[in-house]
Amino acid sequence: MKVSREKWSSNFNEWYDWVLREAQIYDYGRYPVKGMGVWMPYGFRIREKVVSLIRKLLNDTGHEEVLFPLLIPEDLLRRESEHIKGFEDEVFWVTKGGESDLDVKLALRPTSEVAITYMESLWHKTYRDLPKKYYQIVSIFRYETKATRPLLRLREVTTFKEAHTLHESFEDAESQVKEAVGIYSKFFNELGIPFLISRRPEWDKFAGAVYTVAFDTVMPDNRVMQIGTVHHLGDNFTKALDVRIQNRKGDMVYPHQTSYGISDRIIAAVVSLNGDDHGPVLHPGVAPIHVVVIPIPSKGSEEETRRIKEYALRVYRTLVDGGISCTIDLNDERTPGDKFYYWELRGIPLRAEIGPRELRDSTVYLKRRDTFEAFPVKLDSLTREVRDLLERQSHEMSKAAWERFNATVRQEADLKSAKEILRDQGGVVEVPWCGEDSCGMKMEELTEARVLGVPLDKPFASEGKCVLCGRTAKSTLRLAKTY
Amino acid sequence: MKVSREKWSSNFNEWYDWVLREAQIYDYGRYPVKGMGVWMPYGFRIREKVVSLIRKLLNDTGHEEVLFPLLIPEDLLRRESEHIKGFEDEVFWVTKGGESDLDVKLALRPTSEVAITYMESLWHKTYRDLPKKYYQIVSIFRYETKATRPLLRLREVTTFKEAHTLHESFEDAESQVKEAVGIYSKFFNELGIPFLISRRPEWDKFAGAVYTVAFDTVMPDNRVMQIGTVHHLGDNFTKALDVRIQNRKGDMVYPHQTSYGISDRIIAAVVSLNGDDHGPVLHPGVAPIHVVVIPIPSKGSEEETRRIKEYALRVYRTLVDGGISCTIDLNDERTPGDKFYYWELRGIPLRAEIGPRELRDSTVYLKRRDTFEAFPVKLDSLTREVRDLLERQSHEMSKAAWERFNATVRQEADLKSAKEILRDQGGVVEVPWCGEDSCGMKMEELTEARVLGVPLDKPFASEGKCVLCGRTAKSTLRLAKTY
Repeated sequence: MKVSREKWSSNFNEWYDWVLREAQIYDYGRYPVKGMGVWMPYGFRIREKVVSLIRKLLNDTGHEEVLFPLLIPEDLLRRESEHIKGFEDEVFWVTKGGESDLDVKLALRPTSEVAITYMESLWHKTYRDLPKKYYQIVSIFRYETKATRPLLRLREVTTFKEAHTLHESFEDAESQVKEAVGIYSKFFNELGIPFLISRRPEWDKFAGAVYTVAFDTVMPDNRVMQIGTVHHLGDNFTKALDVRIQNRKGDMVYPHQTSYGISDRIIAAVVSLNGDDHGPVLHPGVAPIHVVVIPIPSKGSEEETRRIKEYALRVYRTLVDGGISCTIDLNDERTPGDKFYYWELRGIPLRAEIGPRELRDSTVYLKRRDTFEAFPVKLDSLTREVRDLLERQSHEMSKAAWERFNATVRQEADLKSAKEILRDQGGVVEVPWCGEDSCGMKMEELTEARVLGVPLDKPFASEGKCVLCGRTAKSTLRLAKTY
Repeated sequence: MKVSREKWSSNFNEWYDWVLREAQIYDYGRYPVKGMGVWMPYGFRIREKVVSLIRKLLNDTGHEEVLFPLLIPEDLLRRESEHIKGFEDEVFWVTKGGESDLDVKLALRPTSEVAITYMESLWHKTYRDLPKKYYQIVSIFRYETKATRPLLRLREVTTFKEAHTLHESFEDAESQVKEAVGIYSKFFNELGIPFLISRRPEWDKFAGAVYTVAFDTVMPDNRVMQIGTVHHLGDNFTKALDVRIQNRKGDMVYPHQTSYGISDRIIAAVVSLNGDDHGPVLHPGVAPIHVVVIPIPSKGSEEETRRIKEYALRVYRTLVDGGISCTIDLNDERTPGDKFYYWELRGIPLRAEIGPRELRDSTVYLKRRDTFEAFPVKLDSLTREVRDLLERQSHEMSKAAWERFNATVRQEADLKSAKEILRDQGGVVEVPWCGEDSCGMKMEELTEARVLGVPLDKPFASEGKCVLCGRTAKSTLRLAKTY
């Protein structure tokens, strides 16, 4: 079977909106508040897989889940001055309770650094308590003035996982940044999402941070999307809120912090990064259902149709008993063709067709959603074969996604061609850079693109001359057209 | 060991505040917004057990989880007029985004009937789609003017599970009310929470409902607490929002709805209903950890202490491998006494002490948190014994809770003694009632209590005469001092 990828790759925006709505993932644009949508049942299940995975990775590394109030009083939010400058144009404010005006305006949390730091000042008094690693999964709110897009740029981000950690020293916090980078790398790998890790430039770090490390991926339209950030906060917030702990020498000092977050964009990525004109192809790491069993009625005999259904149920139970997450579509009002369409649109990795031939041979006709390869499998060995196949699919889909991704990351030694590539092909362009902020900012202006920063793993590994000023390059700088 | 229950039962309010804070369940009164607190790590784990259980019960009965936006535009919230009347004094309003005034005020959801009905009008056009059963677990907000109390009366209720269902007819919705009552009964039983089910009186039903069924329990201070409600909404909301579906005769009709909810109060109940002066005693159905292993160092020999620790780790691994949720306290800076205090305060059902004798005999000294009974168990049979014990504890704790509960439900044929009992002893008093609302409301006034309603299972089973007007009684009416 020849699979068309025309809509997915060349007409991605339309494809994306179609999939979110038609596959019942996220209903957007119809709820009567701009920038806010509804997670529908199937989308919620995909979201749940993503949430469970990050929970597991965080719990396994000593993070503790908490839940803070949505509302932050204005005076508290203003305590760290750089921080509030970064957010104040984007805050939704509650000003009324019933008919009364509130004494103090309350912000819908845009992020929770100050709220959490405030409570940490009550909870922790000594280095013996540290490190502490908290996280929560909540909605955050930003009154975006840019064009909103479902899951990509929302006014209510409903799947914000934010971790906040507290440490005795700057160096301990720096080690935590490394742990967080490791956790996120593992997380994206398990979901089959390719990524680059960059240290964001000074002028684009998180408001209130010492520095910011970010993960970016490339979407099918070749635009770059930030999918995770890790911030070293130093003692900026603990100083602003006057939080001190006793260190091991007995002195009262400001502890250091980190924070790191991921959002709804992860679900945008897993839905988008593998697909075709039939819909998304979900990586087994994120598919809430791995196999759908579809009985194909007999052309002539009702008795045979009945026996096919029975056999299909047996296949279904075999898979369930084997620990495979599986469903069976017994809806009599839909033709097999309707069912194929329905489940392909939901991106289920494997389809198990059961018709007269499979009944006769005690086989199952398995079809891969990613390649549309199909072949019969004996019922006896079904569970094992399915397990192997899912593993192979995970591996092959990740590999293919990385290959597509790598092809969009290019090195250029000339700013004009960098600009042309960014305009015509998108992706990421890496250029040599002298290291001066002024040159970096000028490059953003000239290329009409954004600086992603320098590679985290090899910040100083560049040869040649700065593409802007011609001085000796100190590092590689990444440029991209971003969401 | 004689266990004191003085603080728990006679000084419940103080005990409750102490437990929430000291056992790191919910930090209340220190976060700088009135009526909003912070779920701390241990509390979050208890909450997670409760949430997982209700999710399982709902998913198993065909409910689909969704997630709606927090914000509801004022005009949408006002569409059902009875409904908004019930809430308008209690709504928090967002009026500003950044520096701009919003065109339409946005409510922080007090509940989600109108938002969900609005989207259902886009999603469902025919009876073939029905029944649909949605639910979400979210924060809701009420600008309470009454005194707030942690988990009992909050301005941000953080664990609101609200289900919303859509049906072809009034009767179908009525069957759904029954299913919901069954699900909640099972839920409370698995958590060991005793309850009464009452049909609330007309003057106390949910704003916008045809009728409301409610679950109530009795707290250790003998006050009655509502822990769950189920509403038949009829076609009130679908009419108000003009939502129609094609029924099986081909006519366009208003579908009928139900909604049902539980809240943070469930966690208040599981923490409070079993306890003593050492802290709460968690029912195994809700305890996030079932066994804590505590090594007791040798008095003289470091070598023996080392071997005790090793053996304790072996015990811990045996339990983990046996599928028991278990932790081990290896903190060298705390004495065994500190550890006993710490874990008793967290209500862990079983403690496994390992000292020189247990090392020598290959045993474990098990102690029940509920009765403080203690006895040695052979390592060989540990997992089985622990499993049996947990089952016995569940059973005995539920039984004891029901006995305490039943003793607080009394029948009275005289209003004056009803009033005295309610004032002096609390609990629930059942009196004969003529069925007239005016008599019921008058009873509330005279007894300074609240009418819970009539028993759902035997609404008309009363003898004697209405305690107010003396006419022949038509049913039993329940009165209580409530939270």
